[in-house]
Amino acid sequence: MSINYSKRMDSIKASEIREILKLTQNPEVISFAGGLPAPEMFPIEEIKDVSVEVLEEMGTKALQYSTTEGYKPLREKISKRMEKFGIKMNADNILITSGSQQGLDLTGKVFLDPGDVVLCESPSYLGALGAFKQYQPKFVEVETDDDGMIMENLEEIIKTTNKIKIIYVVPDFQNPTGRTWSVDRRKKLIEIANKYNLPIIEDNPYGELRFEGEIPPSVKSFDTEGRVVFLGTFSKTFCPGFRLGWTCADNEIINKYILIKQGVDLQTSTISQIQLDKFLDKYDIDKHIQKIIDVYRVRRDLMIKTMKEEFPKEVKFTEPQGGLFTWAVLPEHINARDLALKAIEKKVAFVPGGSFFPNGGNENTMRINYSNMDEERIVLGIKRLGETIKEML
Amino acid sequence: MSINYSKRMDSIKASEIREILKLTQNPEVISFAGGLPAPEMFPIEEIKDVSVEVLEEMGTKALQYSTTEGYKPLREKISKRMEKFGIKMNADNILITSGSQQGLDLTGKVFLDPGDVVLCESPSYLGALGAFKQYQPKFVEVETDDDGMIMENLEEIIKTTNKIKIIYVVPDFQNPTGRTWSVDRRKKLIEIANKYNLPIIEDNPYGELRFEGEIPPSVKSFDTEGRVVFLGTFSKTFCPGFRLGWTCADNEIINKYILIKQGVDLQTSTISQIQLDKFLDKYDIDKHIQKIIDVYRVRRDLMIKTMKEEFPKEVKFTEPQGGLFTWAVLPEHINARDLALKAIEKKVAFVPGGSFFPNGGNENTMRINYSNMDEERIVLGIKRLGETIKEML
Repeated sequence: MSINYSKRMDSIKASEIREILKLTQNPEVISFAGGLPAPEMFPIEEIKDVSVEVLEEMGTKALQYSTTEGYKPLREKISKRMEKFGIKMNADNILITSGSQQGLDLTGKVFLDPGDVVLCESPSYLGALGAFKQYQPKFVEVETDDDGMIMENLEEIIKTTNKIKIIYVVPDFQNPTGRTWSVDRRKKLIEIANKYNLPIIEDNPYGELRFEGEIPPSVKSFDTEGRVVFLGTFSKTFCPGFRLGWTCADNEIINKYILIKQGVDLQTSTISQIQLDKFLDKYDIDKHIQKIIDVYRVRRDLMIKTMKEEFPKEVKFTEPQGGLFTWAVLPEHINARDLALKAIEKKVAFVPGGSFFPNGGNENTMRINYSNMDEERIVLGIKRLGETIKEML
Repeated sequence: MSINYSKRMDSIKASEIREILKLTQNPEVISFAGGLPAPEMFPIEEIKDVSVEVLEEMGTKALQYSTTEGYKPLREKISKRMEKFGIKMNADNILITSGSQQGLDLTGKVFLDPGDVVLCESPSYLGALGAFKQYQPKFVEVETDDDGMIMENLEEIIKTTNKIKIIYVVPDFQNPTGRTWSVDRRKKLIEIANKYNLPIIEDNPYGELRFEGEIPPSVKSFDTEGRVVFLGTFSKTFCPGFRLGWTCADNEIINKYILIKQGVDLQTSTISQIQLDKFLDKYDIDKHIQKIIDVYRVRRDLMIKTMKEEFPKEVKFTEPQGGLFTWAVLPEHINARDLALKAIEKKVAFVPGGSFFPNGGNENTMRINYSNMDEERIVLGIKRLGETIKEML
């Protein structure tokens, strides 16, 4: 039989990252490829404690169906935690999602028709591109530098492009570059979005993992017209296995997301939400996050130091102040996909950067993760990567 | 600001069931409205036990990201359990989903473009209609009787309708009618689908909750060409709060679902999957299901008996051999939405049946759930419903 699928299926391919991640299941491989948090930091004992307590105190409620928007005490706590980012919203502005990846899928459903245009940073988060792609948009990439999107380029594109539906940005420790937008650029983004009446999707999975300095005000914090949708997650600050994230937006927009989520999966796991709520009640998550930061800071320092020592001078890379990734640009004649194949022979993995550019090119780039490997493996892996690059020079 | 959403948002409205369910949060209300399993049957102690054990034995794995397709030992167990339905498939044919509702959403994404036609039973499951609606299809309803879809009507519709993409059916204890298809109809459905090269979506959330007789072979069990997608769930046999379901299909189709799920939410909760797997290892779920069946059978018996005593003779209703619902047809001049408003004043709730007909009409129908109320409340609630109907005769 030949099956007649939807048109979108013509363009959906397996994610390259997923294929590389399969290779990294071999424990001998030193993997800088995924975006995995350090499992040794997971609060296992605390989760065991709250799991038992929730089942003993409110088992039938925790195991039953619940509302689409999510467990209210948890939404209240999240709305308070949003003040970190300069955001004042209440529980009704929060929708609990199955990871922030689901927030991206819901975004596609709420906003995108085939042929619509998504403006994104160049490069941009592969997982968002993959989620949006299922809604058949075109991507137009906006140039970026160390301060974020270049606003002149953004405005020029908006003036000359039809059917722009959303602007998607990751302003804090961007995936894949690790770069953080300046406050000026954030304010300017809102100005431009107001001027041209465009919604902004602000994806912030890493903002709380800041090694130095203060968390800057989010783009959403400058939003006076209710046009910014903020996506957050507990995957990096608590654990990814629970699949708990949230979407925060003003009433009109968040109600659209809730309507869509009803059809998508009815609701996110009741018991997981109540367990996380209990964890936030009984334990100090900010103290826990500080511990994660202390570990990741050491790894970032060591990785950057080793890259400076072991990578040839021709390779440029970012020095992120937080998050999980650094981003390296190789000499133009080196294709990072070829490099990745050679590196995997030496049992080192990373993600070639080309996939993060929705319209292709930039094959001489690489995303390197430092959160998931211990110090010894970071040094060894970067040394091997350096050797491999030198062989290709 | 006026926000420019996707076209699909024009037709997405809040589910009527959700609005009724809000009213039923009042504990005084006797609710036959939801499709909630009996919470007193949830295996709380066993879940506590496996939660602790999973965290102690494999905490870091349970809390980390995992593969999109799902935890392999669980997929293996599910593939074995599918033999109940006469289905011989292996773990690679199973995708773990966030409830079977997600299987419906993925189905929409894999198969439907705007304007495509979904063939469904008349009436059909509201949650499926809601999931598919987000992909902007047209629904064509096929006439049904006590043995399932009427095959002559199905073939006539197929011959005269363009752009049919899928046939969606709930052959076992259908939601909303509680009816079960005959084996002959199942075979005939496959014959017709083969003849006209159409995929079938077989949704089976209730099949294991059979009070009398043997589980009939599923539609999928007669599928020789890999055109049937089977959706299952643990929401009714374990608990809904975990949000664990599965999709089973032959390789080509299941791989499309996996690709789509990557962008949708990366994966279903790792820890929930491992906990359920451990539960299936340590405890006898079939024994547990038997306990649920014994409770629901008593409730079904009592509800049907009380309906026979208390409902006016003009009201016809189904006598399901399993599942959660009976379905009543009122005299034509009685609008069940009006009846629902009057009933809620008497603190009884049910779902008016009109919403289960995607193209409208049939406002004299009602879906009545018997799994979630104890015996005393079933008798009291049906008495009150009977009185209310009599007032409207």
